[in-house]
Amino acid sequence: MTTFERSSGRAANALRPVRITRGYTRHAEGSVLIEFGETRVLCTASVEERVPPHKKGSGEGWVTAEYGMLPRATHTRSGREAAKGKQTGRTQEIQRLIGRSLRAVFDLAALGERTITLDCDVLQADGGTRTAAITGAFVAAQDAVNVLLSKSLLAASPIREHVAAVSVGIVNGTPLLDLEYIEDSACDTDMNVVMTGAGGFIEIQGTAEGATFSREEMNQLLQLATDGITDLVALQKAALSAPLPA
Amino acid sequence: MTTFERSSGRAANALRPVRITRGYTRHAEGSVLIEFGETRVLCTASVEERVPPHKKGSGEGWVTAEYGMLPRATHTRSGREAAKGKQTGRTQEIQRLIGRSLRAVFDLAALGERTITLDCDVLQADGGTRTAAITGAFVAAQDAVNVLLSKSLLAASPIREHVAAVSVGIVNGTPLLDLEYIEDSACDTDMNVVMTGAGGFIEIQGTAEGATFSREEMNQLLQLATDGITDLVALQKAALSAPLPA
Amino acid sequence: MTTFERSSGRAANALRPVRITRGYTRHAEGSVLIEFGETRVLCTASVEERVPPHKKGSGEGWVTAEYGMLPRATHTRSGREAAKGKQTGRTQEIQRLIGRSLRAVFDLAALGERTITLDCDVLQADGGTRTAAITGAFVAAQDAVNVLLSKSLLAASPIREHVAAVSVGIVNGTPLLDLEYIEDSACDTDMNVVMTGAGGFIEIQGTAEGATFSREEMNQLLQLATDGITDLVALQKAALSAPLPA
Amino acid sequence: MTTFERSSGRAANALRPVRITRGYTRHAEGSVLIEFGETRVLCTASVEERVPPHKKGSGEGWVTAEYGMLPRATHTRSGREAAKGKQTGRTQEIQRLIGRSLRAVFDLAALGERTITLDCDVLQADGGTRTAAITGAFVAAQDAVNVLLSKSLLAASPIREHVAAVSVGIVNGTPLLDLEYIEDSACDTDMNVVMTGAGGFIEIQGTAEGATFSREEMNQLLQLATDGITDLVALQKAALSAPLPA
Amino acid sequence: MTTFERSSGRAANALRPVRITRGYTRHAEGSVLIEFGETRVLCTASVEERVPPHKKGSGEGWVTAEYGMLPRATHTRSGREAAKGKQTGRTQEIQRLIGRSLRAVFDLAALGERTITLDCDVLQADGGTRTAAITGAFVAAQDAVNVLLSKSLLAASPIREHVAAVSVGIVNGTPLLDLEYIEDSACDTDMNVVMTGAGGFIEIQGTAEGATFSREEMNQLLQLATDGITDLVALQKAALSAPLPA
Amino acid sequence: MTTFERSSGRAANALRPVRITRGYTRHAEGSVLIEFGETRVLCTASVEERVPPHKKGSGEGWVTAEYGMLPRATHTRSGREAAKGKQTGRTQEIQRLIGRSLRAVFDLAALGERTITLDCDVLQADGGTRTAAITGAFVAAQDAVNVLLSKSLLAASPIREHVAAVSVGIVNGTPLLDLEYIEDSACDTDMNVVMTGAGGFIEIQGTAEGATFSREEMNQLLQLATDGITDLVALQKAALSAPLPA
Repeated sequence: MTTFERSSGRAANALRPVRITRGYTRHAEGSVLIEFGETRVLCTASVEERVPPHKKGSGEGWVTAEYGMLPRATHTRSGREAAKGKQTGRTQEIQRLIGRSLRAVFDLAALGERTITLDCDVLQADGGTRTAAITGAFVAAQDAVNVLLSKSLLAASPIREHVAAVSVGIVNGTPLLDLEYIEDSACDTDMNVVMTGAGGFIEIQGTAEGATFSREEMNQLLQLATDGITDLVALQKAALSAPLPA
Repeated sequence: MTTFERSSGRAANALRPVRITRGYTRHAEGSVLIEFGETRVLCTASVEERVPPHKKGSGEGWVTAEYGMLPRATHTRSGREAAKGKQTGRTQEIQRLIGRSLRAVFDLAALGERTITLDCDVLQADGGTRTAAITGAFVAAQDAVNVLLSKSLLAASPIREHVAAVSVGIVNGTPLLDLEYIEDSACDTDMNVVMTGAGGFIEIQGTAEGATFSREEMNQLLQLATDGITDLVALQKAALSAPLPA
Repeated sequence: MTTFERSSGRAANALRPVRITRGYTRHAEGSVLIEFGETRVLCTASVEERVPPHKKGSGEGWVTAEYGMLPRATHTRSGREAAKGKQTGRTQEIQRLIGRSLRAVFDLAALGERTITLDCDVLQADGGTRTAAITGAFVAAQDAVNVLLSKSLLAASPIREHVAAVSVGIVNGTPLLDLEYIEDSACDTDMNVVMTGAGGFIEIQGTAEGATFSREEMNQLLQLATDGITDLVALQKAALSAPLPA
Repeated sequence: MTTFERSSGRAANALRPVRITRGYTRHAEGSVLIEFGETRVLCTASVEERVPPHKKGSGEGWVTAEYGMLPRATHTRSGREAAKGKQTGRTQEIQRLIGRSLRAVFDLAALGERTITLDCDVLQADGGTRTAAITGAFVAAQDAVNVLLSKSLLAASPIREHVAAVSVGIVNGTPLLDLEYIEDSACDTDMNVVMTGAGGFIEIQGTAEGATFSREEMNQLLQLATDGITDLVALQKAALSAPLPA
Repeated sequence: MTTFERSSGRAANALRPVRITRGYTRHAEGSVLIEFGETRVLCTASVEERVPPHKKGSGEGWVTAEYGMLPRATHTRSGREAAKGKQTGRTQEIQRLIGRSLRAVFDLAALGERTITLDCDVLQADGGTRTAAITGAFVAAQDAVNVLLSKSLLAASPIREHVAAVSVGIVNGTPLLDLEYIEDSACDTDMNVVMTGAGGFIEIQGTAEGATFSREEMNQLLQLATDGITDLVALQKAALSAPLPA
Repeated sequence: MTTFERSSGRAANALRPVRITRGYTRHAEGSVLIEFGETRVLCTASVEERVPPHKKGSGEGWVTAEYGMLPRATHTRSGREAAKGKQTGRTQEIQRLIGRSLRAVFDLAALGERTITLDCDVLQADGGTRTAAITGAFVAAQDAVNVLLSKSLLAASPIREHVAAVSVGIVNGTPLLDLEYIEDSACDTDMNVVMTGAGGFIEIQGTAEGATFSREEMNQLLQLATDGITDLVALQKAALSAPLPA
């Protein structure tokens, strides 16, 4: 088995440096800049006192997400989706994943008939934008819920658990945690894993880009992901335990 | 653990009756009606002697897929995507999945600079449309390749392996193979698995709809899927071994 | 006058073999596969308990149609309208024609404030798709009305008459009934005729593709069409007199 | 048979006053304002030295049409198609009809690899906009061809014949020529007829709006139309025989 | 400083011949053809007894504008916006300008909860279409208000002042009033000025196309514009003092 | 004349604190975060070795801009343009203004056949986003040109002058420089001014939101703007004189 040399001498089972900056912008109820190494995603949580049609009159709220990438977040400029008049399939896939992941830890009845929209906009991309987005969106959602609690609009938090996500993959036969762009491009298997703070799986999306993968390889990848998400949840908790910057 | 009573007394680890009808329509190079119980998907493979821009001059071909659902394939009528002027996120997700799955077993260099488009149109839906589509699209692709071989446009087949797919899920605590719509609606965890004939994984997409799932549950689901796909590949082979109806 | 040799030795005034399969799919209130030779159109009738804005509060119902063609229903693959984001002018013309034709035999007040949508999707095309669609949609609409009657949602049928349609044309100087694709491509004049079971005209759309046509030629074409539609109405009646397959 | 009192005491078989103003705007190669009573359509013919893809390298030219209606051409304001982002089915039907009608009298090989686009924009609508558009577009096309001839870009005219169009219909049992809006709204049968100067039919589109129509009624309508078109062709000729205003 | 020779020997500070034809079409509450030399714009004012969502229940009305250009209003044919499925940025900029300019002289509370839509469609373009549109739209709006007054739907006019607009620019160093297309193409600075009858500025939009401009040049341009608008307001008054043609 | 109390005791003729952060993201050739008080705009300059069709083969380059606002840059969430499928008229107006302003200081022939695209994305909005965007885009463009110079892709800079922009307005009778959102909402007149470093005007866009404005008021506003832009150009120079952060 060939081993793969990671940038900055990172170990195969190590996350990139993670930074979570709360209160990054001022208008949103929750606003978090999350960085997984050079990947930087701005996650805002917006509360609106209305629900989409399928929830009207249900007594339940809704949690949803939208995802975007600034045109020059990437190595070469990609066309602006607003200018082209439609979102790509990739964008839709990612925002659906973020929405499902966050809804999985929300008690929609406890939220009441209101909507929390998580806007995840990639300022700079270096692999793992969707997993950073989920991890950061959770923190933004928590800040938005805190606003509702502090205004007595909610009596108790509708959030049941933490949720975080990380990518794993096999590059040159070596299972790696938290892939950078260059690793993502080279990998045979790429897997995004979403878990709760309690260690339950919410989503697993694994794709063989080159060779297929085996049950054993998948088990290795899931172990890497489980450990990485444990660390990410700890980082979320640390970030949330600090006072929100003025 | 509650057990769940399946329709027609089906066992938890049993596929629905599968029917593969080749030559279902006459114009396409490959045309297959695949039925997983009451789910019916028409899969056609069309060969065109041109490639998309990113493959021009590469000497390689391309394999891609499009997915659609007739408006009344479902219990209640859904709006026609062509009339609404765009494909839903769900449609795009599914057609991207079908395309990736088929490309995983194709040697694009051996295909040469031509495109095979797999159109998967759901005539009747009862759960598992995307897995039926992948399984049927493979047979249609094989028939299209046979046309190219018989016309000496190809010297050897660019298809390296079989590919098939099945859904699995946990309903009331019971892991089930090949979910019908009613089971799909009730399940806590829903997973689509795509594998090669040789038993390698191409795609795993698992989602917790209600409770999260554990590593052990996932292992149970993957075992079910592996067995089911083994059966589906045998059914593909049986269908392909018969002469194509005139 | 040159005579034109038709495929299978068909006479100039003969329909292709017509097959009408009711209950082709299971979810729709009416579901009919109609075949005019190699042309195959799936016509479903969906009942919804709402009406479009211009009928709200009028006490009247609405009957409308949508038309589509699977990408590989034709000799060469045509782009999927849902993917291109709009319906062609041809598609819109055809679905407007089907809708007008069906409304012409409906008593919208007797239908009550509900909508019947006729989805006509071409699985395989060999000329005459719009006339097959009208002829099949009538049978699907009748089955849907029968459901409403059997559930006592309607006291009496809002259908006043049968409606059916056929194409006629002049090829190499010979007037022909029910053109196949190859005849349609070669014809000088192409005419679609829609009539009631009682023999009244609902629509006549005649187009000179090459040479113009005269009054006398038009009279010949209308006679052919009248005879053909008489036969089609008989076939509709025969199909409807059989019990609906379970 | 009830008789119907027409506005201004017009006879059942009389056209409304027709006015054809050539050179109505200055930039187009042909520019004609045509008035059928209160219906006013501006028809311009634009020559471009290029052809659509399906004609490239064929040595043949192309003739096409676009149709539009100013938002307040009608009694109540209709939404602007450009603002809504799409053309209605009605608009597409009409512009396809105008295009086919004009192509029917053009020798596309004699035109050479260039395109004539006929833009027909309704300034004021009072019934019969599509028939006025066809009749006026012919005059504009003739003026555009004259420009090409005068510049020696063409050696001989590619126009083989005149083409003109008129509507006919049955109102309260009376067959009428050239329907105004109020008659069109009240009619049982509405038919648009396009003919050449030599008296051949190019298009017949008849629709029963209320009661169906019989062969005999259709014959009466076609006779009215034939006479009306004979008059319209004479009016085109008179307009074209005058010098073009500076 | 070079002087620039204008067509027809027009003085640098002279408007082109202006013609204002009221009652140009018959359905709209106000319908005005305005001509600035060879530029011809049809401005209609339509009254509708409803307001957009942001005004519902406010007791206030709304005034808005839409702008369009017929495809062959220009030297070479431009694509039809309705066919392309969207309005250009230029079109949107212009219609927003017209709307703001008209709203500036309207008392929306006095208008009551109704909407006046000003459709400005360019039949022929030779520079200055947006300024002609504003100047003509005012007259159409006045005629529409007169209809409301005459029907006693309004007790007093909601129009507080006249509004008119003109373009100015610097060509070859010479400040010019009311630019024609050829001057507009050659100018270094192009400015559109909208003023009230009382001499207040509503909008100034100045753009350096080549060299930048100085405060002094801007003062010269504004003086030219002020004089020109004084003349335009006098022409509006003269047009409105005449009886509306039947 | 009433005076208006500004936030933080800012003088009527004072800019908000301006911060210009170069190298804000790493992939773009130029990447600048510009802050006018609480308004924060990320401006990236991307170089591509191709030009739009109208410049092909001209030997000249192109400079263009796109503008966007993150959904929660504002007090209440605005819909994402990419999700709605089109850019608003406001967005298009702004990006056209940015593009024209930058092109005004570029020698497109000296740039050669390449394109610089300026993406201006508002992370947080508090008034003046378009003027901040122009001022920041200039710095990003300069950095991108520096990259081209340092790689010897350009021999000399195609940038002729600095360009910067500021808003001015009249609030409660007091002319103010660099309006915040709350001032912008309250103002009678709002003007955006774009000037070169040499003091020439590139664009002036003034709009009366309430009362009209006079020549004298405009002169006061232009003086404020001229002084403000002098300061902004000095700030651009200071930012550019520092070494680019690694």
